[in-house]
Amino acid sequence: MSFFQHPLAVVESSSIGDNTRIWAFAHVLPGARIGSDCNICDHTFIENDIVIGDRVTVKCGVQLWDGIDVEDDVFIGPNATFTNDPFPRSKQHPRKLPRTRIRKGASIGANATILPGLTIGERSMVGAGAVVTRDVPADAIVTGNPAEICGYAGVSEGRLPAVGAPPPEPGSATTLVQGVMIHRLPSVYDLRGNLSFGESNLHIPFAVKRYFLVFGVSSQQIRGEHAHRALQQFLICVHGSCHIVADDGNARQEFALDRPFVGLHLQPMTWAVQYKFSSDAVLLVLASDSYDAGDYIRDYAEFLTLRKSPA
Amino acid sequence: MSFFQHPLAVVESSSIGDNTRIWAFAHVLPGARIGSDCNICDHTFIENDIVIGDRVTVKCGVQLWDGIDVEDDVFIGPNATFTNDPFPRSKQHPRKLPRTRIRKGASIGANATILPGLTIGERSMVGAGAVVTRDVPADAIVTGNPAEICGYAGVSEGRLPAVGAPPPEPGSATTLVQGVMIHRLPSVYDLRGNLSFGESNLHIPFAVKRYFLVFGVSSQQIRGEHAHRALQQFLICVHGSCHIVADDGNARQEFALDRPFVGLHLQPMTWAVQYKFSSDAVLLVLASDSYDAGDYIRDYAEFLTLRKSPA
Amino acid sequence: MSFFQHPLAVVESSSIGDNTRIWAFAHVLPGARIGSDCNICDHTFIENDIVIGDRVTVKCGVQLWDGIDVEDDVFIGPNATFTNDPFPRSKQHPRKLPRTRIRKGASIGANATILPGLTIGERSMVGAGAVVTRDVPADAIVTGNPAEICGYAGVSEGRLPAVGAPPPEPGSATTLVQGVMIHRLPSVYDLRGNLSFGESNLHIPFAVKRYFLVFGVSSQQIRGEHAHRALQQFLICVHGSCHIVADDGNARQEFALDRPFVGLHLQPMTWAVQYKFSSDAVLLVLASDSYDAGDYIRDYAEFLTLRKSPA
Amino acid sequence: MSFFQHPLAVVESSSIGDNTRIWAFAHVLPGARIGSDCNICDHTFIENDIVIGDRVTVKCGVQLWDGIDVEDDVFIGPNATFTNDPFPRSKQHPRKLPRTRIRKGASIGANATILPGLTIGERSMVGAGAVVTRDVPADAIVTGNPAEICGYAGVSEGRLPAVGAPPPEPGSATTLVQGVMIHRLPSVYDLRGNLSFGESNLHIPFAVKRYFLVFGVSSQQIRGEHAHRALQQFLICVHGSCHIVADDGNARQEFALDRPFVGLHLQPMTWAVQYKFSSDAVLLVLASDSYDAGDYIRDYAEFLTLRKSPA
Amino acid sequence: MSFFQHPLAVVESSSIGDNTRIWAFAHVLPGARIGSDCNICDHTFIENDIVIGDRVTVKCGVQLWDGIDVEDDVFIGPNATFTNDPFPRSKQHPRKLPRTRIRKGASIGANATILPGLTIGERSMVGAGAVVTRDVPADAIVTGNPAEICGYAGVSEGRLPAVGAPPPEPGSATTLVQGVMIHRLPSVYDLRGNLSFGESNLHIPFAVKRYFLVFGVSSQQIRGEHAHRALQQFLICVHGSCHIVADDGNARQEFALDRPFVGLHLQPMTWAVQYKFSSDAVLLVLASDSYDAGDYIRDYAEFLTLRKSPA
Amino acid sequence: MSFFQHPLAVVESSSIGDNTRIWAFAHVLPGARIGSDCNICDHTFIENDIVIGDRVTVKCGVQLWDGIDVEDDVFIGPNATFTNDPFPRSKQHPRKLPRTRIRKGASIGANATILPGLTIGERSMVGAGAVVTRDVPADAIVTGNPAEICGYAGVSEGRLPAVGAPPPEPGSATTLVQGVMIHRLPSVYDLRGNLSFGESNLHIPFAVKRYFLVFGVSSQQIRGEHAHRALQQFLICVHGSCHIVADDGNARQEFALDRPFVGLHLQPMTWAVQYKFSSDAVLLVLASDSYDAGDYIRDYAEFLTLRKSPA
Repeated sequence: MSFFQHPLAVVESSSIGDNTRIWAFAHVLPGARIGSDCNICDHTFIENDIVIGDRVTVKCGVQLWDGIDVEDDVFIGPNATFTNDPFPRSKQHPRKLPRTRIRKGASIGANATILPGLTIGERSMVGAGAVVTRDVPADAIVTGNPAEICGYAGVSEGRLPAVGAPPPEPGSATTLVQGVMIHRLPSVYDLRGNLSFGESNLHIPFAVKRYFLVFGVSSQQIRGEHAHRALQQFLICVHGSCHIVADDGNARQEFALDRPFVGLHLQPMTWAVQYKFSSDAVLLVLASDSYDAGDYIRDYAEFLTLRKSPA
Repeated sequence: MSFFQHPLAVVESSSIGDNTRIWAFAHVLPGARIGSDCNICDHTFIENDIVIGDRVTVKCGVQLWDGIDVEDDVFIGPNATFTNDPFPRSKQHPRKLPRTRIRKGASIGANATILPGLTIGERSMVGAGAVVTRDVPADAIVTGNPAEICGYAGVSEGRLPAVGAPPPEPGSATTLVQGVMIHRLPSVYDLRGNLSFGESNLHIPFAVKRYFLVFGVSSQQIRGEHAHRALQQFLICVHGSCHIVADDGNARQEFALDRPFVGLHLQPMTWAVQYKFSSDAVLLVLASDSYDAGDYIRDYAEFLTLRKSPA
Repeated sequence: MSFFQHPLAVVESSSIGDNTRIWAFAHVLPGARIGSDCNICDHTFIENDIVIGDRVTVKCGVQLWDGIDVEDDVFIGPNATFTNDPFPRSKQHPRKLPRTRIRKGASIGANATILPGLTIGERSMVGAGAVVTRDVPADAIVTGNPAEICGYAGVSEGRLPAVGAPPPEPGSATTLVQGVMIHRLPSVYDLRGNLSFGESNLHIPFAVKRYFLVFGVSSQQIRGEHAHRALQQFLICVHGSCHIVADDGNARQEFALDRPFVGLHLQPMTWAVQYKFSSDAVLLVLASDSYDAGDYIRDYAEFLTLRKSPA
Repeated sequence: MSFFQHPLAVVESSSIGDNTRIWAFAHVLPGARIGSDCNICDHTFIENDIVIGDRVTVKCGVQLWDGIDVEDDVFIGPNATFTNDPFPRSKQHPRKLPRTRIRKGASIGANATILPGLTIGERSMVGAGAVVTRDVPADAIVTGNPAEICGYAGVSEGRLPAVGAPPPEPGSATTLVQGVMIHRLPSVYDLRGNLSFGESNLHIPFAVKRYFLVFGVSSQQIRGEHAHRALQQFLICVHGSCHIVADDGNARQEFALDRPFVGLHLQPMTWAVQYKFSSDAVLLVLASDSYDAGDYIRDYAEFLTLRKSPA
Repeated sequence: MSFFQHPLAVVESSSIGDNTRIWAFAHVLPGARIGSDCNICDHTFIENDIVIGDRVTVKCGVQLWDGIDVEDDVFIGPNATFTNDPFPRSKQHPRKLPRTRIRKGASIGANATILPGLTIGERSMVGAGAVVTRDVPADAIVTGNPAEICGYAGVSEGRLPAVGAPPPEPGSATTLVQGVMIHRLPSVYDLRGNLSFGESNLHIPFAVKRYFLVFGVSSQQIRGEHAHRALQQFLICVHGSCHIVADDGNARQEFALDRPFVGLHLQPMTWAVQYKFSSDAVLLVLASDSYDAGDYIRDYAEFLTLRKSPA
Repeated sequence: MSFFQHPLAVVESSSIGDNTRIWAFAHVLPGARIGSDCNICDHTFIENDIVIGDRVTVKCGVQLWDGIDVEDDVFIGPNATFTNDPFPRSKQHPRKLPRTRIRKGASIGANATILPGLTIGERSMVGAGAVVTRDVPADAIVTGNPAEICGYAGVSEGRLPAVGAPPPEPGSATTLVQGVMIHRLPSVYDLRGNLSFGESNLHIPFAVKRYFLVFGVSSQQIRGEHAHRALQQFLICVHGSCHIVADDGNARQEFALDRPFVGLHLQPMTWAVQYKFSSDAVLLVLASDSYDAGDYIRDYAEFLTLRKSPA
């Protein structure tokens, strides 16, 4: 047994990985499986139907109940609380527990509460004290009761510059993300009303083959979360506002689209997320080709692999 | 003298057209020129610097001051009141009077008030009691104090069916106007938000070469008022609402665009007016070609001539 | 011929009543019929298809066109303007003119404009400068462009005390109108919400047999305008506000109902009008009997006759 | 000793019921009394002035302080946190602790916080992460910080069909609850405003003896929570909206009243709760008899007993 | 008789001033008194109890009824309509007519309607088609139905530059009006909230002895309309907005106060008017001395005299 | 060793003060320093880089991480949860932990969550279940997620009378706080708008030398938190509302300023806090002297010392 166990810990499982440390007053039931290099702190409780990956930290006061999967590199803050029964009644046990999935690299803040059956996405971050009632998408940061998305990890951790801004005159500007340009489109403002316009292959850097409009999106929703293999897109928020997070697999940047003369050009192989829709937002997307389901890459890991492979 | 003059009328001008009748207590000053087949009713007053066309009716209690041009077929209702000095002070006369122009076929309602220097467009209709403070476009109906456009003549006179409606399923429908189709675009409504879309040469009956957005138009403004020789347009009001009046030179119909999945296809040689913009309206126009000033026909008479000439 | 005609008037009709005076620069066409004791002022014009009752005043600058009926005791202020063609075009005459009816005792304010085909109700009062686009009910006072009801004659002429008020404690109080009582119903206000209530034959002075709710009434609408022969009613405006004008044939009083604990008891043979509905008004009417069309008196003259006849 | 104690538990009380299990790192002080068939999980702490009923579950990380009564069949989720001092200061102890009462069958969600001195009603359900600052009524489900009622247990657990709907035409329909009918009342909608009505013994299935109006109820309030022995009631939400939960002792159903032509008829011996009042809600209740305090059944247990006893 | 009378005019008065001209179809009753250099146009009617000053223009279609005083230099536009009975009924004459006063230099727009008993202030301007229901202050421009103040004569006639602007940095700037300075006060804007301040004899060019706050002023109201002999004032609109018109007897300028860091310094002997209050406006006035009724000059003519007299 | 240690506690530190008690399943790491008379309850965990003062209570389920300073007399409720890494990721440790400071006498409510690097002010009170994301000022009471100030300790603990009220007539009234007077200023309300005013040395008890305006303060902000040595201030909330807490070192009282005719006079040596600003609040402060940084006392302890020292 190459793991550490404090003398006052109760460890009934034999499936504990190397270098994992289990501290005082912790209690691990026989069925639990814990990976290597984990840190299971004081006053924790790990039930049976549990799989914990490698390099996971479980801080004090946390219980992991039957039905919770914890992938590699997850951090679970102190007193963070999980559930596995949507309508608990004493002595009444649901026939089948909904599974909770904590994806790779996610971070659950101190004293957060996670309702049953949710998926906490990769690298996402649940704020301290948040009460999570819906799935958390990859990379999202959620806070509040009930928790809502307030930002995206990587973007808001302060390691990147502020929201990308359009150039001061009509034209385009590069961004921190490869393949993403921000455009200011020509516009005319006068007393009779305002006009903004763009032309294929001139202001819009491709021939427009198709458009679509996204509207009526609640502020809690996120859309996108995919990349395209070949499609080019040009996004204009023609009413209200929304935010776009674009990612080239290496850098990530957030863009606020809130004016009808600002466009964001996404070249192929750009991962993009749309969120923070105002209630009156109308997002116009001009696209370079017809709809093709096979053009979508919906798995971020696959996207990363494809980005990194030689063309 | 082939015109009729009531014995109690005072007619000092000798430029009166055939068959014109001038009734009791009317007073026409020497410089006035009046066309033929006019009816100048009791208690009217016609000053000197005035040209009145043919077949004009001037009802009782109306005065026409220096600087007012009245084209053929105009109707001026009883007690309708004109002005020619924007800031009248007793005994102070402006050096130059702004001219008021009442275009061919216009109708000025009873007791309406017309501020100085305005143009009342062809066939337009000023409602009874209206106080007109801005130019009235051709065919518009205006009412209120200050007067605003409330409809378009030809459309609202009840001789045409109601506003054109999109088909109940995605697809297109003909309208009363030749060359104008109304489309319902595919749309998907779900809890995550709504989506509507269209593709060139599939839902949009041409290849989209250019788009423009019209927004921030006040409810009093009208836009358009022209036809295109070769350009095709596809109009979608993606937020808020506006009305389109389309005219093929023969029939005229009004369309309310108020949903992002309703489009109006205007083929070349369609005269169109856009008005009744809600304050939050965003009108997306997809166009078949680049901007070309020479493609515009801005004169309705020229439009009619071109429509009627053999191709 | 016992009527007066100014030497500079043109009177072509021979149907002019006794003691009627027609002043300078007036013009009466042959077909017009004018009653006795009228005053037709300077610069008026009376066309042919016109019947004017007795004791009518037509002030300067007024024209009365074909199709206008003016009943007895009407006052028409200076420059008040009538119309008889809803969509006038020069030299185009509608086949059939809509008739305008100015009912007995009505008063048309100076420079008011009356659109074609309307009825101006008995004793109603059109404010100076008003532009009347809809029928005016009996006794109503209308102002503005377009004109809206702003009060009721008899009530607002200042000869009656202000709006009737409920008593300060639960109970009832008499009003100026015979057969109308105003009630304050018991109510309890506490932090958990509010309660008001009434019981048949206790707070409500009859057994409730039926209720009805009136809601969604636009601010321009008036309702009621009838009396009941036998039905008792108890009116409570449970949300928003409306005004009730009650009339016993002798006195008339206006009541603002704007709180759910204020009720108005209308005994049989009370003429009542409901108006000034706020957009969110819900008027609850508790009634003493089933609906019976024969119980309604819809003609005010008939109501007066019945009120005055011995029981 | 017929209860189970983990070797690492500290149990100082001798008043522990049969079959109760007390797990590792739990600490029970001498004064505590715990019923039978309970489950006291790891890392719990039970102070002295505590009475716990039978079949109670206390999950990990929970402390029960002096002054907390826990009735039978209660579930207390992990890390749920109780308090007993409204303004805690170190080393300052209030003379008298307010008592917290967790009623029979209640469920306290994971990581919920319960402020001192509250009563958590029978079968109610406190959502995970909720911060409860006010009493929770029987059967209510509360969530959020501060917690508000979001539904009623039995209704929202998905075991019953959706909210009862009125029939499509005027008339009545049965519901899942015995003695409760939902009515659509006759209504007339036209441009002049809308009308809805009902007549005793025709649309209203009894003679209306009394009415009351409930209004100005905050969205957090609940009303009702009683049954009547003999009174019949007919509920119409004449403005705004509210929800009614009706219960015959066997089935329970929730009804949204949000239109003035929808009525809910509650026969005698129906338990009813009114809640989710919109801020502008006005609930009209027509009742078959005068107010009689003796007609109320305010205790749900008594109601159940009476429902089940032979008539 | 040195005045001109058209052969078709009826002039029964002998009190007509020199050089006055009376045109065709005009009718002047015996009691009317008309000054010199007037122009009484066609189709006018002048009753008996009327005094008209010198240099007055009365355009066509106007009637002047008993009880109307018209001072020197007034302009009355065509078809402008006066009234003298607030509730006219045919054959019922009020015992005493309210007098209407048209002050020196006022201008009544074409087809305007003036209700009975009003005063139309000196040099004020009633817009064409306006329906005037309240007194019009001196110099005010009113339009609409009912008429509201939309500007001030002298300011809005386009002969003066636009609204005075504060300097871009804290400090003061001269204006077109002698003795009026516009100030930008120091201000600090940060995330914690904003601060603006001023100190006596430093930013405020006098020692502050008194303050007053003006608030809750309806948009139709005007305030001020006086000058001070010795008092200095410093005006800051600390919430909402209002307009100040300042006048040194020679130049006049309008200032929009709409930010808490903009102040207007009025030295003694400045005539000032405050109007266009937003509904939420709070105007703070810092004053150099206690209230002294004798310090006010409320008559503009007296103000002009005092301004022009050598000090 | 004069402290108490439960046999099942793990205490690795030797720096524990007299009379401190450490209970079952508590774990104190070697570097921790704990003062005397503390109570460290069951299931607590105290890391190394921790200093705890005297008379501190740490209730069950609490962990104190490296970087947390706990001053004397602090109360930490059960399951209250601390953090020390703003963006925790498993196995990634920030180079430098932000320090959390719990000031003397503060009280952290049960199950509250404290984000890293914050200061919880002296005597402040964090409500149960609150999620604290910003510094908590001294004496403030905060609740909610995220936590906001809802009151001030001392004021809201019910030991003081309600908010101080101005006198019913113009004039001033004493308050519970020495040196603080509440004034009603003269005001005149009429239909033309409202007026309130004050004069130096008459209504304002000093000569006004300076004013400042505070506006645009978010509802979460607090301002003030200082006393002045010599400056007198007179506070009027001229729009919107805010609350003032005034403190003479002995008594403390809260005042709601929400009307432009209510002023609060703060004499020198009064500690004052301004908070609960409505979004539209404008606070006018009249001051007796120029700005002088040296006149401010920003440390409450210093203020208390100065208040208590003989003059």
